[in-house]
Amino acid sequence: MNEKYVYYFTEGNKSMKEILGGKGANIAEMKNLDVPVPPAFTITTQTCDFYIKNNSWPETLENDIKENLKKIEQETQTFFGGEENPLLLSVRSGAAVSMPGMMDTVLNLGLNDKTVLALSKKSGNERFAYDSYRRFIQMFGDVDMGVKHSLFEEALDNIKKENNVKFDTDLSAENLKELVNRYKKIILKETGKEFPQDPFKQLELSINVVFKSWNNKRAIEYRKLNKIEGLLGTAVNIQAMVFGNMGQTSGTGVCFSRNPSTGENKFYGEYLINAQGEDVVAGIRTPEDISTLEQKMPEQYNELVKIYKNLENHYRDMQDMEFTIQEGKLYMLQTRNGKRTGKAAVQIAMDMLEEGLINEKEAILRIDSKSLDQLLHKSLDPNAVKNATVLARGLPASPGAVFGKIVFDADKAFDEKEKGNKVILVRTETSPEDIKGMNAAEGILTQRGGMTSHAAVVARGMGKPCVSGSSEIVVYDKQEKLVIGDKSFKEGDFITIDGSLGVVYEGKLDVVNPSLEGSFAKLMSLSDKYRKLGVRTNADTPKDAKVAVSFGAEGIGLCRTEHMFFEGDRIKAVREMILSESLEGRQKALDKLLPMQREDFVGIYEAMGNRPVTIRLLDPPLHEFLPKEENDIVELSKDMDVSLEKLKEKIEDLHEFNPMLGHRGCRLAITYPEIAKMQTRAIIEAAIIASEKLGQEIVPEIMVPLIGNSKEFEIQKEIIEQTIKEVISEKEKEVKYKIGTMIEIPRAALTADKIAEHAEFFSFGTNDLTQMGLGLSRDDSGKFLKQYVSLGIYKTDPFQSIDQDGVGQLMQIAIAKGLNKNPNLKLGICGEHGGEPESVKFCHKLGLTYVSCSPFRVPIAKLAAAQAAILEEN
Amino acid sequence: MNEKYVYYFTEGNKSMKEILGGKGANIAEMKNLDVPVPPAFTITTQTCDFYIKNNSWPETLENDIKENLKKIEQETQTFFGGEENPLLLSVRSGAAVSMPGMMDTVLNLGLNDKTVLALSKKSGNERFAYDSYRRFIQMFGDVDMGVKHSLFEEALDNIKKENNVKFDTDLSAENLKELVNRYKKIILKETGKEFPQDPFKQLELSINVVFKSWNNKRAIEYRKLNKIEGLLGTAVNIQAMVFGNMGQTSGTGVCFSRNPSTGENKFYGEYLINAQGEDVVAGIRTPEDISTLEQKMPEQYNELVKIYKNLENHYRDMQDMEFTIQEGKLYMLQTRNGKRTGKAAVQIAMDMLEEGLINEKEAILRIDSKSLDQLLHKSLDPNAVKNATVLARGLPASPGAVFGKIVFDADKAFDEKEKGNKVILVRTETSPEDIKGMNAAEGILTQRGGMTSHAAVVARGMGKPCVSGSSEIVVYDKQEKLVIGDKSFKEGDFITIDGSLGVVYEGKLDVVNPSLEGSFAKLMSLSDKYRKLGVRTNADTPKDAKVAVSFGAEGIGLCRTEHMFFEGDRIKAVREMILSESLEGRQKALDKLLPMQREDFVGIYEAMGNRPVTIRLLDPPLHEFLPKEENDIVELSKDMDVSLEKLKEKIEDLHEFNPMLGHRGCRLAITYPEIAKMQTRAIIEAAIIASEKLGQEIVPEIMVPLIGNSKEFEIQKEIIEQTIKEVISEKEKEVKYKIGTMIEIPRAALTADKIAEHAEFFSFGTNDLTQMGLGLSRDDSGKFLKQYVSLGIYKTDPFQSIDQDGVGQLMQIAIAKGLNKNPNLKLGICGEHGGEPESVKFCHKLGLTYVSCSPFRVPIAKLAAAQAAILEEN
Repeated sequence: MNEKYVYYFTEGNKSMKEILGGKGANIAEMKNLDVPVPPAFTITTQTCDFYIKNNSWPETLENDIKENLKKIEQETQTFFGGEENPLLLSVRSGAAVSMPGMMDTVLNLGLNDKTVLALSKKSGNERFAYDSYRRFIQMFGDVDMGVKHSLFEEALDNIKKENNVKFDTDLSAENLKELVNRYKKIILKETGKEFPQDPFKQLELSINVVFKSWNNKRAIEYRKLNKIEGLLGTAVNIQAMVFGNMGQTSGTGVCFSRNPSTGENKFYGEYLINAQGEDVVAGIRTPEDISTLEQKMPEQYNELVKIYKNLENHYRDMQDMEFTIQEGKLYMLQTRNGKRTGKAAVQIAMDMLEEGLINEKEAILRIDSKSLDQLLHKSLDPNAVKNATVLARGLPASPGAVFGKIVFDADKAFDEKEKGNKVILVRTETSPEDIKGMNAAEGILTQRGGMTSHAAVVARGMGKPCVSGSSEIVVYDKQEKLVIGDKSFKEGDFITIDGSLGVVYEGKLDVVNPSLEGSFAKLMSLSDKYRKLGVRTNADTPKDAKVAVSFGAEGIGLCRTEHMFFEGDRIKAVREMILSESLEGRQKALDKLLPMQREDFVGIYEAMGNRPVTIRLLDPPLHEFLPKEENDIVELSKDMDVSLEKLKEKIEDLHEFNPMLGHRGCRLAITYPEIAKMQTRAIIEAAIIASEKLGQEIVPEIMVPLIGNSKEFEIQKEIIEQTIKEVISEKEKEVKYKIGTMIEIPRAALTADKIAEHAEFFSFGTNDLTQMGLGLSRDDSGKFLKQYVSLGIYKTDPFQSIDQDGVGQLMQIAIAKGLNKNPNLKLGICGEHGGEPESVKFCHKLGLTYVSCSPFRVPIAKLAAAQAAILEEN
Repeated sequence: MNEKYVYYFTEGNKSMKEILGGKGANIAEMKNLDVPVPPAFTITTQTCDFYIKNNSWPETLENDIKENLKKIEQETQTFFGGEENPLLLSVRSGAAVSMPGMMDTVLNLGLNDKTVLALSKKSGNERFAYDSYRRFIQMFGDVDMGVKHSLFEEALDNIKKENNVKFDTDLSAENLKELVNRYKKIILKETGKEFPQDPFKQLELSINVVFKSWNNKRAIEYRKLNKIEGLLGTAVNIQAMVFGNMGQTSGTGVCFSRNPSTGENKFYGEYLINAQGEDVVAGIRTPEDISTLEQKMPEQYNELVKIYKNLENHYRDMQDMEFTIQEGKLYMLQTRNGKRTGKAAVQIAMDMLEEGLINEKEAILRIDSKSLDQLLHKSLDPNAVKNATVLARGLPASPGAVFGKIVFDADKAFDEKEKGNKVILVRTETSPEDIKGMNAAEGILTQRGGMTSHAAVVARGMGKPCVSGSSEIVVYDKQEKLVIGDKSFKEGDFITIDGSLGVVYEGKLDVVNPSLEGSFAKLMSLSDKYRKLGVRTNADTPKDAKVAVSFGAEGIGLCRTEHMFFEGDRIKAVREMILSESLEGRQKALDKLLPMQREDFVGIYEAMGNRPVTIRLLDPPLHEFLPKEENDIVELSKDMDVSLEKLKEKIEDLHEFNPMLGHRGCRLAITYPEIAKMQTRAIIEAAIIASEKLGQEIVPEIMVPLIGNSKEFEIQKEIIEQTIKEVISEKEKEVKYKIGTMIEIPRAALTADKIAEHAEFFSFGTNDLTQMGLGLSRDDSGKFLKQYVSLGIYKTDPFQSIDQDGVGQLMQIAIAKGLNKNPNLKLGICGEHGGEPESVKFCHKLGLTYVSCSPFRVPIAKLAAAQAAILEEN
């Protein structure tokens, strides 16, 4: 092998992350920019790979390291292992992708019984020198020599007891010297080996420790969790130590070129005088704001400002930097693109665009579209969170944070809201009967159900925070009790939920309102400029529709008519229809529903103006409209004047083993065409009314659900068109319309050519397509899907991001077959995936006409669509 | 148009069914064979099509008819409308495919006020002449002139009252003359038109009546029901009337060249002296056995024998014939291939093969494979059925007929069986807990569930008669009451069910045992000779396996291990496993199950000998193993020493909204690998034991259920192989094995290439593939699938016959992708479709290695496979 294993910091640059890791590449880049960096060299990631595979170093590595060490010695005028002016090293991991804290780091390397004396002399701080030394030994013993950590802790405890001190920091230099001796004895006893005094031996072992840490448990877990794949290993950065703790002219700090929380274009950071890096993080002393450094060390501060501006300009992104000042001399230890909140990301991208630092496309690509969600919802006050008690975790089913009193019953939620109380509806799971209560509640917490359970879907549609599927809680709906661990909560107790993160807190926590600043609006119009994919919304009410329009929705891709069936008198009429034994009886009930549905649609058309509206005909199985609890059934029996026995028989008769695959969707309208007729009539009559009101043409899009067979669609289309003809002839008005279908059954995708002969549009119902295509019930799979994702069976939850290999393949088949038969076919998606960035990008690739998602996801979808369009160009 | 609309009976032949209809083509063929046939001509089916489309005759048709009429007149020396020797005609429909009784027929045409006198004179029977005349007028008035049938009936009633007679047959010739007058007046009054006296006008109208009857309601319904498609219309056969009622030298009869019920090669039929065709059917006089004709009219009988032998030889199939003897002269009116029972079909085909009349391939193609089912099961004594009371109809879920006392409880069924009583288990629906009771019962009747419901699948597997999904019955499981209409039955009441037809009878009806005669065995070995597709069976117990082997199964394609989990101590151990909170607890329970499973497998290997056995790992969701009823739960709580609250919590926790798409199949073994390990160990240890016992190598095929993702399979395979290695090393024995998977989730079919990289075989689970691919729950779709089939949305119930466009497409995709990656992949099917002839033929076309079906369907599958292979050659 003639590979180059080691790069001196003058030999690399920022483009070499793959082999030098992020840290190493940026150290080299800073050196190139004449930024003051302590001399360093980097062992490549390939070397790590070699070491892991062969459990040994490449032949020439030792020599390479020694040569590079010499360069550092020359530059710093120190000597590795030197008894006068010892060179101490930091040995730090650094992969191509940042994995903060996951791998090992060794500081102060080079200390031994002799160099510790030299350090003590140089720093003027004997205690510090010995504390470093004992930590160094402890780490070595533990990580590299396999000595139990607890043995060192025991020795430390003993020495504290012997000296009657409480904290480590209270130990004197003498105590620490003694501790160093005891540590060395422990190592000898446990391993039969002496702690290595030879600095190069220390270095060799430390490099190996870092190599090995690439494959420690937490690092593997972190890569899995963050989908980091295809990397060879970690690089190892070996750098001359500099000390911020050498008195009042020394210090250390962390700083950002802009505010990572708000995005404000203002230098941000904190530092400590006479301290080492760890002290800033540890919080023993409170760090000071970076702005105060200007007064304390004006020269160094000005230099730092010059450097950060230089680095930001050079990297064209906000920088997160570490620095140390040693006896008045500023050193930069690290720089990288800074992590930031969603809000900051938008602000920074738009500011840098304005400053001319980046162009429009870059600005769009800079922002993680998912993070926009944070901007649209209430969030918890970070200060409040610090002292809060986390009760449980669940799925982040619908974003936003909110507090309220616990209620266990939907009606109760409504009553409390009427009284002006804020409540959180807590249920084992929710059902369509709970809609009214969910709407009244501030947020929803459920024990069961996944990201696309009823609670989650409805809550997202309503824009209400929801934590679902929290397996850590047990809800006793009937006893009105919520049990979490050994705590028990009753109605009226306060809790706070954070639906963005899926966390439940005890009591009331302060929340912060979202503010859609100018930069957000700017980003949206920029996205509109670049994206090719349309973005519609799923909205069932005029209220939802208005919210969605305010977020930029270009139409409604899915209006679920059944949600309108649950309110007040309507549910009565619906139940009357279900319980009728004759067409006449059903017709009578439908006649009552007609004006209500018509009114709904008029409201929605008005809210949407000239934007298209796709209305889906009745979808859920009829049993969803009947009560489940005994007392509700008794009440209904009285209400409807139907014998309890007969009512129960009917409920029993409508019961289904697998309602997902049962008598629902267009199957209902095949059995009861009168339902489709009433809904069609309401849609068309409302279009006539609204178009007169608004003075503009309204072209409703009627969508038939759950088509599995082209003949079903033909039958439905005939009924719909016949009804439209009737309405047009009665009202003597012309109405244009479109008739299309959901593609949500695998067979529909496979036979899309036949369906496309009759349909004007397809809308992919990827929720059901996922359920049926993967054979996974979204309500039941929560129990094992997490394990499936952690085992890598699915890369992500297929209900969150489209399973491209399976469901995506069905979509591709349907699109190819559909367009082949009908080149004018409009193609959309109205499953929950329509608002998930990866899925949106996939839809762009597939060439869909639009995606449709819940109102709060509209901005995300727009940005993701713009990113997809830009990425495609490149 | 220069088409030929009319064929004289010397111009056609049997190959012209398409244009002359079956009847017309065979009349012409008989004429060609010099069989005595009354002269006739046939108007083509194309003419019918023309008439229906244009509502008029083609220009030249009238002339053609008149010319052909003249030929008949010349041949018979009679005259159409003649006042001396009148020609009377029969006008009969006749399509290319027999549609018995669906379309109209007119007899005695040509009668009017004058010819009736001539007929009276010729027949010497005035009453007969006028009765024919009034019937002719009545039919005309009703069908062709649109007069209400009831008006004629009223007139007939009046005349009977006036003359104090009870039956039509008691009316005198004078009475009938008067009735003819009144009928004519009714027609005049209602239509303003005279009854047409012109015979050609009568003929024209009658031809049109027959044409129109092609599209009457019942004919359309019949074609839909029998999937008769692509025909143009009916031909019209116009033939000189001959009379069997002209005294003691005349007669009429129906005969078969062989016994259509048993297949015996013996002339079979019945006749009446001095009678017309209708009289044989009407049953006013009891017809005599054809053998007695030999004595009464030896000459005519011998001629008839000569003719039938000639016709059978000519048509090379059993003939169903009509004949009339008019004053000593024999006429053949019709011949066609006779309908026959399954038993007769096999007997006749094998006899004809032996006689050299047909060859092997023809013999195989002659038999409707479905009809074999009748041969394998008990059937109702036809005499008993005649007087039986049909209580209800349901689905013919599992064939065979049986009677027994009603029981509503599975345990009760077992107890009664122990006491020696025959019982029918009657349930709303069955669940896996009922297995023991189902096995004890003679038959099963359920209110709910389709052809592939639990009851149906298990009953077919056990070979027990079952009627499922009988929506006409209401079962009150708890009250132990069965209500059918206004009748109520309790435990102990006798009922009889016919699972072949889906009928429930009151009381005990006699049943007849199946007898597998030599011809059946001959047919099976013939099928084995020609078929290319393997035929295995689905069997879960040594008993089932033995039955299947006796029916010729070549292996087990599906052994469901879970069925073994429900018996006695096993269900206890299974529940113990489910209720365990720890791996240790589960392992303890599994350790108890291991020896039982191992014993099961040894028994199955022994029953199957050197035939392959595919064993599927645990499939159903765990909640199926826990009780549902309160008292059973209380009992279990005591049995298991688990608190009732905790038990209920566990049951609640395992509850699923859509268990079909839930935590089952390999998903269980992903969560609890110890289950797959135990089962693998049992399979391999049993193979070692059985191979020693039998002195032959046993190569178990281990099948992983519900794979949706190749990674799932990889994980399962690793667990299985690891366990096998352990067993092999413990036992120090070599065992060969195969590991494969079900393809039953659409995604598995779509990603079959990836799965095939690791799997040695695929077995299509077409039940689930249908459920998921079509989004149809087999347990819930019974309610609307009938309507779907009658609307033509699906041609047949997709759970009975593979939906080739949808599920078939998924199979094709899976096969193509699978073989592409792994050319050695074995391909089978183990869904219920494996025993359905059309599906078997489809599987042959797809190139599967084998089909697997319930034991009683093995012969059907073999025959269907042979037919598919032969048809493919042609």
